[in-house]
Amino acid sequence: MDDLLQLGKQALASQPFSVFVGAELTGFSPGWAELTIPITPQLKQQHGFVHGGVISYAADNALTFVGGTVLGTAVVTSEYKINYLRPATGTALIARATVIYSSKTQAVCRCDVFVVDEGEERLCAVSQGTIARISQSSEAQA
Amino acid sequence: MDDLLQLGKQALASQPFSVFVGAELTGFSPGWAELTIPITPQLKQQHGFVHGGVISYAADNALTFVGGTVLGTAVVTSEYKINYLRPATGTALIARATVIYSSKTQAVCRCDVFVVDEGEERLCAVSQGTIARISQSSEAQA
Amino acid sequence: MDDLLQLGKQALASQPFSVFVGAELTGFSPGWAELTIPITPQLKQQHGFVHGGVISYAADNALTFVGGTVLGTAVVTSEYKINYLRPATGTALIARATVIYSSKTQAVCRCDVFVVDEGEERLCAVSQGTIARISQSSEAQA
Amino acid sequence: MDDLLQLGKQALASQPFSVFVGAELTGFSPGWAELTIPITPQLKQQHGFVHGGVISYAADNALTFVGGTVLGTAVVTSEYKINYLRPATGTALIARATVIYSSKTQAVCRCDVFVVDEGEERLCAVSQGTIARISQSSEAQA
Repeated sequence: MDDLLQLGKQALASQPFSVFVGAELTGFSPGWAELTIPITPQLKQQHGFVHGGVISYAADNALTFVGGTVLGTAVVTSEYKINYLRPATGTALIARATVIYSSKTQAVCRCDVFVVDEGEERLCAVSQGTIARISQSSEAQA
Repeated sequence: MDDLLQLGKQALASQPFSVFVGAELTGFSPGWAELTIPITPQLKQQHGFVHGGVISYAADNALTFVGGTVLGTAVVTSEYKINYLRPATGTALIARATVIYSSKTQAVCRCDVFVVDEGEERLCAVSQGTIARISQSSEAQA
Repeated sequence: MDDLLQLGKQALASQPFSVFVGAELTGFSPGWAELTIPITPQLKQQHGFVHGGVISYAADNALTFVGGTVLGTAVVTSEYKINYLRPATGTALIARATVIYSSKTQAVCRCDVFVVDEGEERLCAVSQGTIARISQSSEAQA
Repeated sequence: MDDLLQLGKQALASQPFSVFVGAELTGFSPGWAELTIPITPQLKQQHGFVHGGVISYAADNALTFVGGTVLGTAVVTSEYKINYLRPATGTALIARATVIYSSKTQAVCRCDVFVVDEGEERLCAVSQGTIARISQSSEAQA
């Protein structure tokens, strides 16, 4: 495993909520991040689909991580929007994020969230947002 | 407790992920919904603040619930955007959502998320999105 | 007319596109901006309603201006989202923007766009976005 | 010129605001739309860059048109968000939109806006939104 991915996995492991949800960093290189979340019963809503909040978490965090690949480790998601496309049912969520544009202080990124069902991936949400670099003195939420 | 709030609490209790996160419905009337989430260690990120994913969950779910007060119980969040304003640290998150406009099939809603810290509320995120009514045959994610 | 409003009117008059569209600054104070656009035939789409692009312009520019009331004159809209609520028909558009939160370098703002029809105002769009302060050396789009 | 592009050009020509701004439909096929806007002095802001409102118009209208390629001609943009990436200066704006997902009643689409400067294209804004099919009886804004 390369050093950057190792670094990213440590960062993810240091977030109690990411551990709680069961997220894994499965891809991490400059301009690219992939989070995978095995779908467990506690991540669902009342109809048996993955809760939208989990999909949002996945998009938000993948956006933060991909921003970190170009801005450094001290980054936060400033804002994002997400469109849910279809109910998510299957064995895992995969959130894939890319950097569209970056300056010294912020990056605009997109993230597509897929659900894996019987070995097939289906796009279930798309998002777009801004990741900001923060100074050491004002480190904020992931 | 009034009937509508009781109904809402049952709906929330039927969402495994909402139970997992520890969300409580503390306000629910036509055009108004309030979710409260006690801040526990597992909801944080690496710097001790509430993870952005939890704040997104709170906004998303409060938006869904407030949409449900005007559209009926079979609703989903179609899309939303959120701006994080400041790191959230304290004892509880409170997400307050209102309906801005609704038609027969969808509602545009806003949600403000506050953090309660030493008895004081501070606004930590603002969001806006669309809630859609779904037919029984295509019930989808919350 | 107060000095700040006078200053804002000059800024708006210096934007060729705002003059082209016929926008007027009708309110401008710390944390508050109002743009009014008389509805003329060239601002419409094929069904006789105000074109969405005009409503977006109004929201975007009111957001920029209100951000400027707290951040200074060198500001740009970094990003925003808008929900259209109903077709706009009438005599004028009014975009009213407020500052929700501001730091030294950026402000999160909301803007509601109304259409005036037979003396009555109806909400036709709602928006939310981020306004950023720019350094003199990198002044950018309004 | 193929029939679909011809149809799209007629639709654009029927929008007074699009004619006013000088937009041209330069690409139109199932799931794909491209709008080109020659940059003229009246489309600028006070620093000589294309006004953000023009870029928003371009994104919004390209999103509407691309939605129309899969949903039929009676469509409106319900909502969208846009991130501005850099000041736009050059000879023309090009807005390129694609359909990410569509159901019978709506489509989620993305649009990238480029500026052409000395023969080179640079990405200056990215957007994402929802296009909705409207019934004949409630045709609304483009």
